Amino acid sequence: MSLVAVGTVAFDDIETPFGRAEKVVGGACTYISLAASYFVKPVQVVSVVGDDFPEAVLAFLQERGIDLSGLQIKLGEKSFFWAGRYHRDLNSRDTLDTQLNVLANFEPVLPESYKAPDVLMLGNLVPKIQSDVLAQLKQRPGLVVLDTMNFWMDHALDDLKAVLKSIDVLTINDEEARQLSGKHSLVVAAQSIHEMGPKYIVIKKGEHGALLFHHGQMFYAPALPLAEVIDPTGAGDSFAGGFTGYLAKTKDYSFDNLKRAVVYGAAMGSFCVEAFGIENLKQLTPSMIEARVQSFANLVHF
Amino acid sequence: MSLVAVGTVAFDDIETPFGRAEKVVGGACTYISLAASYFVKPVQVVSVVGDDFPEAVLAFLQERGIDLSGLQIKLGEKSFFWAGRYHRDLNSRDTLDTQLNVLANFEPVLPESYKAPDVLMLGNLVPKIQSDVLAQLKQRPGLVVLDTMNFWMDHALDDLKAVLKSIDVLTINDEEARQLSGKHSLVVAAQSIHEMGPKYIVIKKGEHGALLFHHGQMFYAPALPLAEVIDPTGAGDSFAGGFTGYLAKTKDYSFDNLKRAVVYGAAMGSFCVEAFGIENLKQLTPSMIEARVQSFANLVHF
Repeated sequence: MSLVAVGTVAFDDIETPFGRAEKVVGGACTYISLAASYFVKPVQVVSVVGDDFPEAVLAFLQERGIDLSGLQIKLGEKSFFWAGRYHRDLNSRDTLDTQLNVLANFEPVLPESYKAPDVLMLGNLVPKIQSDVLAQLKQRPGLVVLDTMNFWMDHALDDLKAVLKSIDVLTINDEEARQLSGKHSLVVAAQSIHEMGPKYIVIKKGEHGALLFHHGQMFYAPALPLAEVIDPTGAGDSFAGGFTGYLAKTKDYSFDNLKRAVVYGAAMGSFCVEAFGIENLKQLTPSMIEARVQSFANLVHF
Repeated sequence: MSLVAVGTVAFDDIETPFGRAEKVVGGACTYISLAASYFVKPVQVVSVVGDDFPEAVLAFLQERGIDLSGLQIKLGEKSFFWAGRYHRDLNSRDTLDTQLNVLANFEPVLPESYKAPDVLMLGNLVPKIQSDVLAQLKQRPGLVVLDTMNFWMDHALDDLKAVLKSIDVLTINDEEARQLSGKHSLVVAAQSIHEMGPKYIVIKKGEHGALLFHHGQMFYAPALPLAEVIDPTGAGDSFAGGFTGYLAKTKDYSFDNLKRAVVYGAAMGSFCVEAFGIENLKQLTPSMIEARVQSFANLVHF
């Protein structure tokens, strides 16, 4: 079993109503690979950093069974940087700064050992890069999952639509699903997005949970109501990591198993938001994860 | 088994992005009693209308087993009127007009046959009137449920806090729960509201479902994702009607049975929003309701 995860490895400045953290380790691929590492080994990272990225963090990721041979380290360059401020409700945020740095000219190169994964997770990035990674594979993975955002709908819609034709699962938030489909009802939006390619659609609704659609079938996982949310950064990527990690582990791509994967994803997202950055994803245990999945079952079972 | 339902019986002008309806029959008590009438008979209404209220509608309510002997009809006066316009997301609305009319001097008078109900549903009204109804009962009901809104927190907070001490279940929306408790996290807000009296708290989140809290226990029912939402007016009251109707029918006030009641409430809310006003609540059948409850189970079971 193996998972290839593509996306940013970065620094973030994060401001929430409850605190502020500067230059914390972040990036979609960091959250995805850390969350997935609790389910599958190896998680094979495709990304790029500058030589300012802390070696201790890379060593920690490797200790967690994360393969960094597809991580490019650009000497004399700086890592991708993002700064954002969350609104009081923590469900929306403003981007204060984005410095592409190494990402500006990123060309992913897959090591030979990466070219036949069970599951491929294409984290939010330029759609053309997502396509490039797909094109480098030797064989089609059991499942290809793609995350994207409104920015690419505004600026690279044709490229996005092209890559959507080749994937199995699209993860997207509710407003983005509406933008991509032009439909307000998420049920109707999902029907319309199916026609663009993906046979599964996961619509993420932040603190309101996530919906899974599969040609007329529907599943809903709430977000776990928490006494304290410290920092929502990375929740969606931790979700993607738990989701794809569980699927790479079980290699069962049926609707019923994708439901369970959504719950494991939601569980990893709920751990993520309980601390700043990746802190809370560093030392989980299988029994902590199982207990949290059980609390999702308790929350909705009647 | 019996349910007493207190609240407005009214006319509404409703504007949504999808249409407009004038002077349709509405009011909290109308939705509550109609939704509850699928579970329990009699539903005993405590309310007031003017002589402009259509007799045919009153006759229809009576045919559905709704007891109107506690409904005052004021000759020469006009019924309560509300006009509102929904925003594009249908999750928020502006009030365009409110005419209290008969409600300005409403003094509820409970007929003798109303004074020992199994369940009492105090729909959203002046907190003092809610207290007055409680004071007229001969014996404490098995369960007292109260709905309220931010307006009473702004204008009659002491009266509201007084009546909260005497009830079992508070239904309230998420923003109102935050306002009442001064806490942002709904988990913490519920803890704080428990201390005000209610042992159960239902926090309604519109299209994002409803949470049930009971001293540290939590249950979540999503709203059913629908292909088409026509008019959200009355969804919360239909929820309250299904919730209290199911509880009056089963007379089991345990946490486990309140979970089921929340799902029946959510089912009735989902029927309500599929048409303007009360239209879709007029001719449901038990098998339609059971099928919808089953689709809630399918939606969340994993």
